[in-house]
Amino acid sequence: MSAPKKVVLAYSGGLDTSIILKWLQTEYGCEVVTFTADLGQGEELEPARKKAELLGIPSENIYIEDVREEFVKDFVFPMFRANAVYEGLYLLGTSIARPLISKRLVEIARETGADAIAHGATGKGNDQVRFELSAAALDPDIKCIAPWREWDLTSRTKLLEFAEANQIPIAKDKRGEAPFSVDANLLHTSSEGKVLEDPAVMAPDYVFQRTVAPEDAPETPEYIEITFEKGDAVAINGEAMSPATILTKLNELGGKHGCGRLDFVENRFVGMKSRGIYETPGGTVLLEAHRGIEQITLDSGAGHLKDSLMPRYAELIYNGFWFSPEREMLQAAIDKSQELVSGTVRLKLYKGSATCVGRWSDSSLYSEAHVTFEDDAGAYDQKDAAGFIQLNALRLRLLAARKRRLG
Amino acid sequence: MSAPKKVVLAYSGGLDTSIILKWLQTEYGCEVVTFTADLGQGEELEPARKKAELLGIPSENIYIEDVREEFVKDFVFPMFRANAVYEGLYLLGTSIARPLISKRLVEIARETGADAIAHGATGKGNDQVRFELSAAALDPDIKCIAPWREWDLTSRTKLLEFAEANQIPIAKDKRGEAPFSVDANLLHTSSEGKVLEDPAVMAPDYVFQRTVAPEDAPETPEYIEITFEKGDAVAINGEAMSPATILTKLNELGGKHGCGRLDFVENRFVGMKSRGIYETPGGTVLLEAHRGIEQITLDSGAGHLKDSLMPRYAELIYNGFWFSPEREMLQAAIDKSQELVSGTVRLKLYKGSATCVGRWSDSSLYSEAHVTFEDDAGAYDQKDAAGFIQLNALRLRLLAARKRRLG
Amino acid sequence: MSAPKKVVLAYSGGLDTSIILKWLQTEYGCEVVTFTADLGQGEELEPARKKAELLGIPSENIYIEDVREEFVKDFVFPMFRANAVYEGLYLLGTSIARPLISKRLVEIARETGADAIAHGATGKGNDQVRFELSAAALDPDIKCIAPWREWDLTSRTKLLEFAEANQIPIAKDKRGEAPFSVDANLLHTSSEGKVLEDPAVMAPDYVFQRTVAPEDAPETPEYIEITFEKGDAVAINGEAMSPATILTKLNELGGKHGCGRLDFVENRFVGMKSRGIYETPGGTVLLEAHRGIEQITLDSGAGHLKDSLMPRYAELIYNGFWFSPEREMLQAAIDKSQELVSGTVRLKLYKGSATCVGRWSDSSLYSEAHVTFEDDAGAYDQKDAAGFIQLNALRLRLLAARKRRLG
Amino acid sequence: MSAPKKVVLAYSGGLDTSIILKWLQTEYGCEVVTFTADLGQGEELEPARKKAELLGIPSENIYIEDVREEFVKDFVFPMFRANAVYEGLYLLGTSIARPLISKRLVEIARETGADAIAHGATGKGNDQVRFELSAAALDPDIKCIAPWREWDLTSRTKLLEFAEANQIPIAKDKRGEAPFSVDANLLHTSSEGKVLEDPAVMAPDYVFQRTVAPEDAPETPEYIEITFEKGDAVAINGEAMSPATILTKLNELGGKHGCGRLDFVENRFVGMKSRGIYETPGGTVLLEAHRGIEQITLDSGAGHLKDSLMPRYAELIYNGFWFSPEREMLQAAIDKSQELVSGTVRLKLYKGSATCVGRWSDSSLYSEAHVTFEDDAGAYDQKDAAGFIQLNALRLRLLAARKRRLG
Repeated sequence: MSAPKKVVLAYSGGLDTSIILKWLQTEYGCEVVTFTADLGQGEELEPARKKAELLGIPSENIYIEDVREEFVKDFVFPMFRANAVYEGLYLLGTSIARPLISKRLVEIARETGADAIAHGATGKGNDQVRFELSAAALDPDIKCIAPWREWDLTSRTKLLEFAEANQIPIAKDKRGEAPFSVDANLLHTSSEGKVLEDPAVMAPDYVFQRTVAPEDAPETPEYIEITFEKGDAVAINGEAMSPATILTKLNELGGKHGCGRLDFVENRFVGMKSRGIYETPGGTVLLEAHRGIEQITLDSGAGHLKDSLMPRYAELIYNGFWFSPEREMLQAAIDKSQELVSGTVRLKLYKGSATCVGRWSDSSLYSEAHVTFEDDAGAYDQKDAAGFIQLNALRLRLLAARKRRLG
Repeated sequence: MSAPKKVVLAYSGGLDTSIILKWLQTEYGCEVVTFTADLGQGEELEPARKKAELLGIPSENIYIEDVREEFVKDFVFPMFRANAVYEGLYLLGTSIARPLISKRLVEIARETGADAIAHGATGKGNDQVRFELSAAALDPDIKCIAPWREWDLTSRTKLLEFAEANQIPIAKDKRGEAPFSVDANLLHTSSEGKVLEDPAVMAPDYVFQRTVAPEDAPETPEYIEITFEKGDAVAINGEAMSPATILTKLNELGGKHGCGRLDFVENRFVGMKSRGIYETPGGTVLLEAHRGIEQITLDSGAGHLKDSLMPRYAELIYNGFWFSPEREMLQAAIDKSQELVSGTVRLKLYKGSATCVGRWSDSSLYSEAHVTFEDDAGAYDQKDAAGFIQLNALRLRLLAARKRRLG
Repeated sequence: MSAPKKVVLAYSGGLDTSIILKWLQTEYGCEVVTFTADLGQGEELEPARKKAELLGIPSENIYIEDVREEFVKDFVFPMFRANAVYEGLYLLGTSIARPLISKRLVEIARETGADAIAHGATGKGNDQVRFELSAAALDPDIKCIAPWREWDLTSRTKLLEFAEANQIPIAKDKRGEAPFSVDANLLHTSSEGKVLEDPAVMAPDYVFQRTVAPEDAPETPEYIEITFEKGDAVAINGEAMSPATILTKLNELGGKHGCGRLDFVENRFVGMKSRGIYETPGGTVLLEAHRGIEQITLDSGAGHLKDSLMPRYAELIYNGFWFSPEREMLQAAIDKSQELVSGTVRLKLYKGSATCVGRWSDSSLYSEAHVTFEDDAGAYDQKDAAGFIQLNALRLRLLAARKRRLG
Repeated sequence: MSAPKKVVLAYSGGLDTSIILKWLQTEYGCEVVTFTADLGQGEELEPARKKAELLGIPSENIYIEDVREEFVKDFVFPMFRANAVYEGLYLLGTSIARPLISKRLVEIARETGADAIAHGATGKGNDQVRFELSAAALDPDIKCIAPWREWDLTSRTKLLEFAEANQIPIAKDKRGEAPFSVDANLLHTSSEGKVLEDPAVMAPDYVFQRTVAPEDAPETPEYIEITFEKGDAVAINGEAMSPATILTKLNELGGKHGCGRLDFVENRFVGMKSRGIYETPGGTVLLEAHRGIEQITLDSGAGHLKDSLMPRYAELIYNGFWFSPEREMLQAAIDKSQELVSGTVRLKLYKGSATCVGRWSDSSLYSEAHVTFEDDAGAYDQKDAAGFIQLNALRLRLLAARKRRLG
């Protein structure tokens, strides 16, 4: 790979990406463009602009954007249509944010004539893969620079020395090492490393940032209603809201009731296991609600096919293949299934749980006439079941007869 | 089908199966053998014996058995090795009990020279299918009699008239109609029908029998440890127990903390949707624990394959195909994966939630040396990730290049 | 089911459906509308009109249509996009025609105010299922009449007696019994029954109608080129043709070279095995060609997903679920994958084989620069493979280390 | 990676691996052990011994083994139980041989105290992955050396210079470059590169080594019978043979009739497409035969599950994951299905085609009594089909009714 001339850096404004910024300038002598996105991580963006300016980035090279609506509408919601869950439990909060960041990095590279992008993910994790696969899928020639895989700033001490040597301001609380590492966006917070590394040891309470402990949640359950159209949430308690507003509101509601905490050991795409603590309050509520509305609006053929495709779909997102033909194929199938997934779900939030306790819809497939214990007027003839069973049993009988025959 | 001469009836001792017993005698003039099983439903069995005797069944034709250990060991545990969940949420509590009952019915038929079995499931539900498919798979020539599909006792009134006309004792509380219908065994309780038929309306609290409401559960979390060997739970808090004892104990623990309630609309195999209220306290705890131990003992290849097979496996059990070649094939694959799924999980039970908060094992695949944020001494070379990504990205780049080429 | 008043019958003009026509009139006293379709079965349709008139059907109740283009364009081609093959070998020639016939039956019922449709399929086969599931999916209230499941004309003798008693003309060659039964359309011929019932015995040569024996095929191979656009064949040897014309032409070419014969024992949806002899000359050539063009235009992610979905897709079509949400979901995924499956394939036809010997495309993903044994100028860095393997091997190493550790 | 001290080299005796041998000695100063296996590639092994001796390898470090029986029994046959085909057409002939070679390399390393293995696969292909993943799965600490990824002998000229400088004898025909590259074993030959690189151009006839052109095959078909036990071929024309003898014999028969040629563009695991010409005469016959015997001995549940698992199974083998938990899980499922796949198949070999024309078995599930067109005496009640269809149609009717309701 030839040296990059101009690099778009995913820049948070924090110490690490500031060091990367400087390192790119000094190591490659290249021009740096910064991209700072509001994905709902809960941090001010303007300090990032000041930091970038301080590090000598001209203002036309500083991109700061609120991408929350795009994030929820084009990434989070399509994923929730699939009820995507990785390895049975993880709601993919980090995974789903990376492709959007890469997409903007590549687009800004195109706008600014940059030939490379850079990110602050390490060589051990999944995020490097997600960033770089997304970039490759969007621009076949873009270079990807992952300083953590290249440089020799391999200890906290060396990083701080580099920062000092390069006049990078170090916040007081960054002098010592953080007891764990955090990623956050509108969908979730993720914490890992250090005090969380032993999967036998319970996560300390100070890890949690977005949810109260169930023990501290209100003593009284709260009931809410979520309305869906074509598989996407469009209203809470009857009030229509934009995608990002809905997720923000569900985060508040779920967080208040201690919903969506997860202590998890997962298989990284790069081959190792890691332990993470996740908080996905709004997403947890949303998943339960979406399953609830699908229960009455999706028929079994569509539902079972979705269930069987989901693990692969989730794995693709986890592994960084959002922008791949196979994810798009699966999305086409999933979206096809959601055309009539509309209606309203009633949920109970209480002490860490979000449970569906009612659902109704104009496009419901539930038929009381068919299922009722009462005398039914011809909707269903129980005698049909005999033939149904008889033919389903036929091959089993032939197998049993063979077994008997062979002794 | 020629008329049966001798029928083994799945007999609960209740009004409905007593009516069936009499109806079989009168309709077919056949000899009846009763089979009453303790599956952990929480009812005394001896009254069933008395009832059968009262209805004229000679004692050698009355089979009463405690099958709880077989139920958990040979049916529930193999199913939990798969983390089987139907349609995202249902733990298959009824489905998994039916094959065992059929197996014993067929075995008793063989022992007693009976040519038919009979059950009390209606023509609208899944249980008829499960009973009869299991029977067909075990004996190709056995007849299956489902009186609810055949007779004209199609209303409560007619049933009671038949009972009175045939001197079948009717308990006082059976004169009126139950507000909903219940099935129970050691794994779960299932309630459906009548007051539960409208899926928009929240289930009334009196439906629940085995779990306290989360609101009434203890204010303090309880921590427990479950130990696994080869995928099966073998001890609670360090105390080794038999399979049925473990599930009984987990029911107590889970029930006390309000775990495992489910309000669910599902797709029946016979083609309609139905709404059920389930309580699976022990199973809910067990599933969470099993997932927890798999997190550190199963590698991603095995785990992801299991995840992708699970929906089909669960569907097979739900639909009644326990005794089918394809279920056995999947079981062989699943069991193969569990050979080293051994170790201990720590769970927190609180107000309706069971969450894994720690796990450890001699056969753990988790490697702190690989995942650590700390300087690592060669276990993992971050530079390898560059090549890994490069080759994973290659096809995406070729796709992107084509797109650009075609314009 | 209440008696039908007006029935649209799938009418071939042959003896059996003529008997059905009469039987419907006499059994139900209902009005009959006939629908005779040219699906490419190779029979004249006008005799069917005369027959219907002879049996008293007024001309406004006689529908005769050439649906070959719709058949190939909307049914055969979408299916071939999936490379659909049932149980490894069968190209689904009968299965794919049934939904179209049902669709027209239901549409004609709507136009003529009929409340039922009828077909001549027996109670043992798959076609009854395909006809009736399709009809149910298109009209929830339509009645389906399957005389073979209802009447008592259960022997050849009884059928002929009924025909004579009702003045139905009997062609001379229909007096005796045919040595096997045939279904045909533009995609294939299917023969089964009687002389073909023993799967150990080779099918006699007179069974084949559309292909010469490979032994009698030309001594010289013939090379042809098929051009695809978006997954569908659009030209042969450079000459653009309509869908049905293409399939007709491929049938000629394939038939002349003895391609597409299949001796097969399959699993029917109704639970039994049956043996069929199929001829699918054009389809066999088309499948090989489609695979050939996909080889260079489909990337591995899309291709492997398609391969894994195909068995389920084929099973759905075989079982009669063409008009189901899950088939439509899979179709959406498959069609998504075909957007750039365009280009040309060269095939060799010879003595029963159709083999792809070359393929090229503007949207090819094949990159000689990457694959070449020659010195490559930077398209691919072989050193990347080391990291790729290293990370793919990581979990296998961890497993091996555990195995060693546990002894 | 620290430098290896003793390396077991997969040594063919050819020029390339002789150069590797020397390069390992000079580059790493390490001791070399050679392993030369007879996998049925059709070459004498003793010249390899002489070559190794000439290059200074002491005789105790020269391993020469005939592994053909192990190859067929433990690798080829298990794979054929699955009907494994990669990307619709490729029988995995190269893929399945690599794990066995790695297994022996690792075992010999253990026996000789070597700390590394080495192979002659390039950095662009799949074989490097297969060798190294297999080795990692069998020994977590073994080093893998792939000289083609490391050295600077990147042109034919440099290789020859190195050979000359190191007194490695060069056969006359190796001075010029081969027009394509070949791999062979008892299952297949594989040719690629150079004259085969353009996938539009038909492969020249001189590429084929093991099959006659269909045009040159006998004018008369040959009929053979293959007998299976538990899914494995055990006899040809009634004569029992060992696994390797059977495959050898089938190669002769298939090769004589021009069976098993394949012109194919495939997706390599490393991300690019490549074009290969394969000859798998015996394997092609065996696959057709195995499908034939499964047609009558496997029920649809088992068969359809196998079909749906197959693409993943084939992909695992292609990608080098033979020694992985997930391949072993799938194998357990597949093997479970084969317990009664026993019986005999009759095949017709003619001019490039191998087609099943008859099959019979004591464990056949085919029931003429059920399928017959003749009057049947109660084996099957056609009226059952009505109920079967009715319940299968129920959900489709509910969907259609919803559609009508919503307009």
